[in-house]
Amino acid sequence: MTKPLYTNLNVDALFLGPKSENAVFFREMMDYAVSEHMHWRSGFHPEDAALVTSVDRYEHNYRETLYRTEGILNQLSAKLKNTSIPFFSPRYLGHINSDTLMVSNLAYVMAMMYNPNNCTYEVSPTTTELELESGLDLCRMLGYDPQHAWGHITSGGTVANYEGLWVARNLKTLPFAVSQHPETKELVSHKSQKQLMNMPTTEVLDLISELQKRGIFDEIRNMTCRGTGSKTEILGKLLVPQSKHYSWMKAADIFGIGQENIIPLPVNEHYQTDVGKMREITLDLIEKGVPILAMIGVVGTTEVGAIDRVDEVIALRQECEERYGESFYIHIDAAYAGYACSMLLNEQGEFMEYDDLVNYHHALGIVPENISWPKPEVYQSFKALRYVDSITIDPHKVGFIQYSAGAICMKDKRILDLIASRALYVFEENNNQSNSPASNRGVLGASIMEGSKSGATAAALWAAHRLLPLNISGYGKVIAAGIVTANQLLDKMANMPPIEIGEYRFKMHIMPTPDFHMINFTFKEVENTSLINHNALNKRIYELCSYSSGRAYSNDFFTSSTILDYKEYGDTPWYYAEKCGFSRSEWEKARCVYVLRAAVMTHCLRNEEHFEEHWNQLQAIFVKKLTQLVDEEEKKSRQMLNREESFLIIDKNN
Amino acid sequence: MTKPLYTNLNVDALFLGPKSENAVFFREMMDYAVSEHMHWRSGFHPEDAALVTSVDRYEHNYRETLYRTEGILNQLSAKLKNTSIPFFSPRYLGHINSDTLMVSNLAYVMAMMYNPNNCTYEVSPTTTELELESGLDLCRMLGYDPQHAWGHITSGGTVANYEGLWVARNLKTLPFAVSQHPETKELVSHKSQKQLMNMPTTEVLDLISELQKRGIFDEIRNMTCRGTGSKTEILGKLLVPQSKHYSWMKAADIFGIGQENIIPLPVNEHYQTDVGKMREITLDLIEKGVPILAMIGVVGTTEVGAIDRVDEVIALRQECEERYGESFYIHIDAAYAGYACSMLLNEQGEFMEYDDLVNYHHALGIVPENISWPKPEVYQSFKALRYVDSITIDPHKVGFIQYSAGAICMKDKRILDLIASRALYVFEENNNQSNSPASNRGVLGASIMEGSKSGATAAALWAAHRLLPLNISGYGKVIAAGIVTANQLLDKMANMPPIEIGEYRFKMHIMPTPDFHMINFTFKEVENTSLINHNALNKRIYELCSYSSGRAYSNDFFTSSTILDYKEYGDTPWYYAEKCGFSRSEWEKARCVYVLRAAVMTHCLRNEEHFEEHWNQLQAIFVKKLTQLVDEEEKKSRQMLNREESFLIIDKNN
Repeated sequence: MTKPLYTNLNVDALFLGPKSENAVFFREMMDYAVSEHMHWRSGFHPEDAALVTSVDRYEHNYRETLYRTEGILNQLSAKLKNTSIPFFSPRYLGHINSDTLMVSNLAYVMAMMYNPNNCTYEVSPTTTELELESGLDLCRMLGYDPQHAWGHITSGGTVANYEGLWVARNLKTLPFAVSQHPETKELVSHKSQKQLMNMPTTEVLDLISELQKRGIFDEIRNMTCRGTGSKTEILGKLLVPQSKHYSWMKAADIFGIGQENIIPLPVNEHYQTDVGKMREITLDLIEKGVPILAMIGVVGTTEVGAIDRVDEVIALRQECEERYGESFYIHIDAAYAGYACSMLLNEQGEFMEYDDLVNYHHALGIVPENISWPKPEVYQSFKALRYVDSITIDPHKVGFIQYSAGAICMKDKRILDLIASRALYVFEENNNQSNSPASNRGVLGASIMEGSKSGATAAALWAAHRLLPLNISGYGKVIAAGIVTANQLLDKMANMPPIEIGEYRFKMHIMPTPDFHMINFTFKEVENTSLINHNALNKRIYELCSYSSGRAYSNDFFTSSTILDYKEYGDTPWYYAEKCGFSRSEWEKARCVYVLRAAVMTHCLRNEEHFEEHWNQLQAIFVKKLTQLVDEEEKKSRQMLNREESFLIIDKNN
Repeated sequence: MTKPLYTNLNVDALFLGPKSENAVFFREMMDYAVSEHMHWRSGFHPEDAALVTSVDRYEHNYRETLYRTEGILNQLSAKLKNTSIPFFSPRYLGHINSDTLMVSNLAYVMAMMYNPNNCTYEVSPTTTELELESGLDLCRMLGYDPQHAWGHITSGGTVANYEGLWVARNLKTLPFAVSQHPETKELVSHKSQKQLMNMPTTEVLDLISELQKRGIFDEIRNMTCRGTGSKTEILGKLLVPQSKHYSWMKAADIFGIGQENIIPLPVNEHYQTDVGKMREITLDLIEKGVPILAMIGVVGTTEVGAIDRVDEVIALRQECEERYGESFYIHIDAAYAGYACSMLLNEQGEFMEYDDLVNYHHALGIVPENISWPKPEVYQSFKALRYVDSITIDPHKVGFIQYSAGAICMKDKRILDLIASRALYVFEENNNQSNSPASNRGVLGASIMEGSKSGATAAALWAAHRLLPLNISGYGKVIAAGIVTANQLLDKMANMPPIEIGEYRFKMHIMPTPDFHMINFTFKEVENTSLINHNALNKRIYELCSYSSGRAYSNDFFTSSTILDYKEYGDTPWYYAEKCGFSRSEWEKARCVYVLRAAVMTHCLRNEEHFEEHWNQLQAIFVKKLTQLVDEEEKKSRQMLNREESFLIIDKNN
């Protein structure tokens, strides 16, 4: 194996740090960013007279305006310090948040002062190219061929999902449009009506190229749903994992598809899409002649971090193509776990074989010998991403960029012509550079859902990708820190003895073997048999470990929570309830499990010694929180003289 | 009149300035922002052991990582300095860009370090409230009742337009859903079929309230297009000004409406929607029983700054309601000019009467005696905004905020229930504060199109609104600076003698009496009679005054350009071509006019002395640019020995 190019990255040197350890560096660089811009301004046409003199600047109203500015910033700082959440701290293990990269914060500030707008190349010559470059970085990491793929930044994962659905929807209606035009219908005359409904993506893209060659593309495009509006009978069904992230419900509404045309795919006991049932549903639709608008898979659900079997989705599509000559569009929502792909690539950006990969993680020392990640099937999912049509991936999640930065990658950029628009004042035509490598310049304004957008986000992402290559020695190393910590925590949590508080004993339960670095857990009062009370107990624990029980700054530990309910997951949460010791009838009564939810992204605890220290601290915090809870409940029951009011006490007396 | 509360704001003290005049203050405040955050970090649980020691920080790999970070920031700075556009300078009069407010830049940086995500209150307790507050500021300025209205930040004006259309579309399908359900159909039984198609917005909102009271709202909502998908026959037609900003074409595609269901409203010779034709088209649709999905008006088109007669749209709606009992949804795209509403409000936030307003502008000295803005009909348009259903307004345009910050305001927040969603892990239910003033906390995540979004944007907007009240003494004063400069420029440009370069004479023409602060102009070679050559001449002038002819930093002047063509404006551009002296047959040949386009937002030239100096400089620049152009063309014609290649020479020899 060739010598790693850049394995020497020090993860602690990437972040400002929980004690602002890199304060000196950060301050110096911030000053650099500001100075560079200021000199740029003052060096622009030095011959121009100063419009504001130093005398003006000492005039009363001038000073007053500056004082007011300062006063407002004082107020803002007070508000922020008073109620913000300390994501930077290893004490925060909740939402998909952690410290963010210094280089991205600084790059954002640097570019923000120039205020580029990436909708229009003319007002963002620098940052438009940084966005296109960063988009291709992501494509490469995910396995797409950068010659044909493209990627760009969206305001978040939700908009990225929308764009995926937008191209899928318009693609779906093209074959029908082609079949209805006298000059083009022979292009699809070899297809049966059913095959026309579910044409493979690549074939439709080839149709686009052919129509363009014939000069009839615009006319046909006006006959797709873009021109005529959505027709649900042509669009068919959108297959979405049962857990359906709310962005898909919104998407079905927005795109005129209708939420009733979503078919939920049941999940297995690991909260992944159930491969067998997915196959059954898909084949059934194909046999019935119902179009499949798109198949959505999730790589890292926001509730438990489950990773769908992308390779199985690909296999199913292949089966459909071979058996029926029918196919479907695949969009993967990898908003959460997408960046973890970097852990699977060597320094040359190549996918490593599974065994090599695990060994290499150990050899580099970024994963200790007793831990291995990913599981083989998760590895297969990542490896299969290259075959899907589009992928959502969020830099503001596991890319460690500050908000807002989502992204979408598409396998074949020809698909953009289905949605592209042009606006005269925004896009320049026929400019001299049209055959240069930057010929994609106009693409950002013309082929995306949003309009004006900050070029500073592109600078932040570009800078992160330059500092941290999208492979095992860059991002891989940072992400591994969270995964290792999650695994160590899981081990400790699973083996933690019950915590005794007075007459109560609380046993921690964890949801087993997560696919990524999200841990779901609950505390169970050992003798409690009521799932409803169990849920109430954990809701209260969440409240004590979040902003909602007082000022976050003075709290000791933060987590988040979620409700796994029947409506979204069928009987899947029952497996966990059962593992905690609740009876089936309790599950039937509650029909949901309230769980604590910790996305473990912190880079601070990868060192074993720090981890041990943190774990000891955390155990003490759990004792403290549970003591507080017991005290509250006992006080409540004394005051109200109605012991049934308490989720804790009632149980002891049953 | 009571004494103004805050007329003493100094506009120059708001911006970093063209020579970085406020460098000392800006740097000091930036340092403050950074320090405050750093102390917040290090003060959080001081008892926690430092995870990174000073010894660690001097280790080789640690330093190397910092050096790499520095190197990347050096590269980024070099790129930015090399190709950015100097929006801050009064030499930039092009796109809707200028310097941005120091307070917003600083507030963004301050909040960004805390990294709040306004999708979820739980991770943005500070900035969610700042967003809601800023949204209500906008509602108040536009004339909405803050008790019933709401506003929020979007990633840009395009997404704001989408949200307006989203609620309008879902609203349109509710009455049908109500009429089809056995338990609710009596609620609309008094309506004829045609009236059901075009029910007034308020009546539909009352229906929502009634359905909620009966506990059947969710069921009915599933029967709207949200549940069933778009049905174009129910949605009907979207009426959009002929100039149709490309965001509406995209919107009709995205929302499953179909671009063929857009009816373009012709514009008059001032590029405003032709009121008479709008009325004709609307009444015709109503009489034919075609539903009107929504009527779109524009307050400040991006190409010429035209402001539609909102009052006339309101009058037309009233006429329809009175004559037919039918109505339509009105969305106004005031992305560009919306903030100018502040010039019409006194310090108490009340709309001033027209004469008072003009006098007050003069009395305050923010508009000189020889200028008055707005025109009476523009005043009426602003005043009528309070009656429309929703409004797009962009802080990153005339709000002087850096990108990206759009916003939408809605008159009656009950409309949100048509699009609201809930996701368990994101939104908290039944929390203790549900009856507090902050009960709208969950609304951001649940009722908007986007998902995760930067809370820092909210901080930037909030800070700007606190520093600059949305009235004549705050934003009004800053916006007036641009309007005054635009008016002075128009006057100078209209009276500028032709520029003689060798055998050529170039006369400047301007499009008369703009509604806002956008100037469209061209240079005409006096003896040229070919509109096609005229267009080519001005395209080349644009190139010489933009990034596209070399490094922007070394250029003298910047403008932008647009093409006013038949397809978008019908014969309207012909008025301008005629004014420039081209024959009708030339217009028939070219069918478009290429114009230079200057949004005059700079605050630097409001002082007459500075303006005069700048104008003299600008005239010299025009001479320089035209000389360069003549030289190029003459050289080209000599080299190519083909005089017909030149748009300039050919004309002299005809």
